[in-house]
Amino acid sequence: MSFAHARVVALSGGVGGARLLYGLSRVLAPERLACVVNTGDDLVHWGLHVSPDVDTVLYTLGDVGDEARGWGLAGETFRALAMMRRYGGDDWFALGDGDLATHLVRTEALGRGESLTRVTARLARGLGIGARILPMADAPCRTMIATDEGALPFQRWFVARRAEPRVRGVSFEGDAPATPEVLAALAEADLVVIGPSNPYVSIDPILTRPGVREALAGKLVVAVSPIVGGKAVKGPLATMIPDLVGLAPGPDAIVRHYAGLLGGIVVEHGDEGEVTGCAVHAARTVMGDRDGSVRLAREVLAFAETLA
Amino acid sequence: MSFAHARVVALSGGVGGARLLYGLSRVLAPERLACVVNTGDDLVHWGLHVSPDVDTVLYTLGDVGDEARGWGLAGETFRALAMMRRYGGDDWFALGDGDLATHLVRTEALGRGESLTRVTARLARGLGIGARILPMADAPCRTMIATDEGALPFQRWFVARRAEPRVRGVSFEGDAPATPEVLAALAEADLVVIGPSNPYVSIDPILTRPGVREALAGKLVVAVSPIVGGKAVKGPLATMIPDLVGLAPGPDAIVRHYAGLLGGIVVEHGDEGEVTGCAVHAARTVMGDRDGSVRLAREVLAFAETLA
Repeated sequence: MSFAHARVVALSGGVGGARLLYGLSRVLAPERLACVVNTGDDLVHWGLHVSPDVDTVLYTLGDVGDEARGWGLAGETFRALAMMRRYGGDDWFALGDGDLATHLVRTEALGRGESLTRVTARLARGLGIGARILPMADAPCRTMIATDEGALPFQRWFVARRAEPRVRGVSFEGDAPATPEVLAALAEADLVVIGPSNPYVSIDPILTRPGVREALAGKLVVAVSPIVGGKAVKGPLATMIPDLVGLAPGPDAIVRHYAGLLGGIVVEHGDEGEVTGCAVHAARTVMGDRDGSVRLAREVLAFAETLA
Repeated sequence: MSFAHARVVALSGGVGGARLLYGLSRVLAPERLACVVNTGDDLVHWGLHVSPDVDTVLYTLGDVGDEARGWGLAGETFRALAMMRRYGGDDWFALGDGDLATHLVRTEALGRGESLTRVTARLARGLGIGARILPMADAPCRTMIATDEGALPFQRWFVARRAEPRVRGVSFEGDAPATPEVLAALAEADLVVIGPSNPYVSIDPILTRPGVREALAGKLVVAVSPIVGGKAVKGPLATMIPDLVGLAPGPDAIVRHYAGLLGGIVVEHGDEGEVTGCAVHAARTVMGDRDGSVRLAREVLAFAETLA
């Protein structure tokens, strides 16, 4: 079959996954793409429900994100944060002024019983996004990082502590199931793409949601390696791999992590020799700009076609 | 007694009252001034608890307010509002970006059971304000405007409908009592100043709180007329007076409204002939700048001394 007409579900964390989603959203008709996004990093900050990965996906697909910074809105200002400091409020997690509208809409909606899935769909419509953006779960699921200094919620470890305390383990608090929308999208999918996101803290929260593993049985799954030349393009993954599983950071560690799930993996040129256990395709996986995202999306789909 | 050392309680709505409070706060030592502020206009907007009159008082006394506009912060931006419009959110009531921090701190605090009085004190400290700023009540009290087109909450009438529907009556929903802090301040007061605020929608909400009339018995009360030469300096008062009580808009209508309460009233030069029923003092009551506020505050205190 031609994957230009396939139904694709892509699993994503923040920046890297969002960039691949951007490419997929430019290549596939909107009704053929569903993005399942990690919510394990969600937090309540200033009384607002913040969904960092969902927001990065929204802003990236809506073409309003700050590409250099990798989070928040382009041209953002931080007046509310400055006022918050005058009031002695928490300032370890920066919310931009325009960004606040996203969290306000979400928090108000959740407060009157609207689901995270539904309000995310409204936010996506407001940003002109056609593809479905599906939070992995409507109920809370909190990614906890076990460190040498005790357990920390993900954003406390990643942002407040700059990912410095050494990671001893990752766990997920709460047994929130995948949403019916996520399970339906997976059931219909011809292809599941795992974006170049951190497997431990961005993709595992999705894969461990009750219902997801079963829905993936028999599906063609293709991953894009988040490790390039032994380094993470962004984030703490390169040190987490040896810390957590005692392997060198490379695509093979990614394949082993997703054991039994992958039909193939797309890796950076030069990294393909490392991979055993599934089909491999070498490509330019670092997405420096929108064109890079679109090119990689096309390559992933073409590679998947050869595996179907 | 010298009123430079008196304990003063000033009752206030938004702009006009806040400007007089500014003057009083520059003339009196912080521990001698308590400001009791109307909360009948409070509303929940974007899920946030907004206290328009309290905020105007905070920003004016904190010297961070936009003087020309009369509400919000100086140099304010409206990026969140622009994003909110993209999401199809309510945009009839403008909240500025820096301003949002105030509402976020307040909403978060109220949500975990902190009183409006207590969080207002925190906000005031953050803005370096020494005088006590006391919301009239901690529980909700909603000012309703009966109009030819039905009853509207105050801000819906004033902002969304630009005060256009003709006023047939004003009422207050909820029997929230004055706070213990307000009653204690009134009990200790040597002088109560009623600022140049709208008596029907800014001062009456305070005066009708259970406990306030009793606390005012035997106190020296001096008002500053919000009507100058038959016109309201700001807001819809000039049409409300004939609509509500069939009188021409002038200081005499104000004195009659506060019947039995006032020891004296300060009016604009030229308006003093109108007043019967209490002592009157003519002054420059329009406060065009900070110096004007300070001058008027001194005159009000000097006039009150002659009445004590």
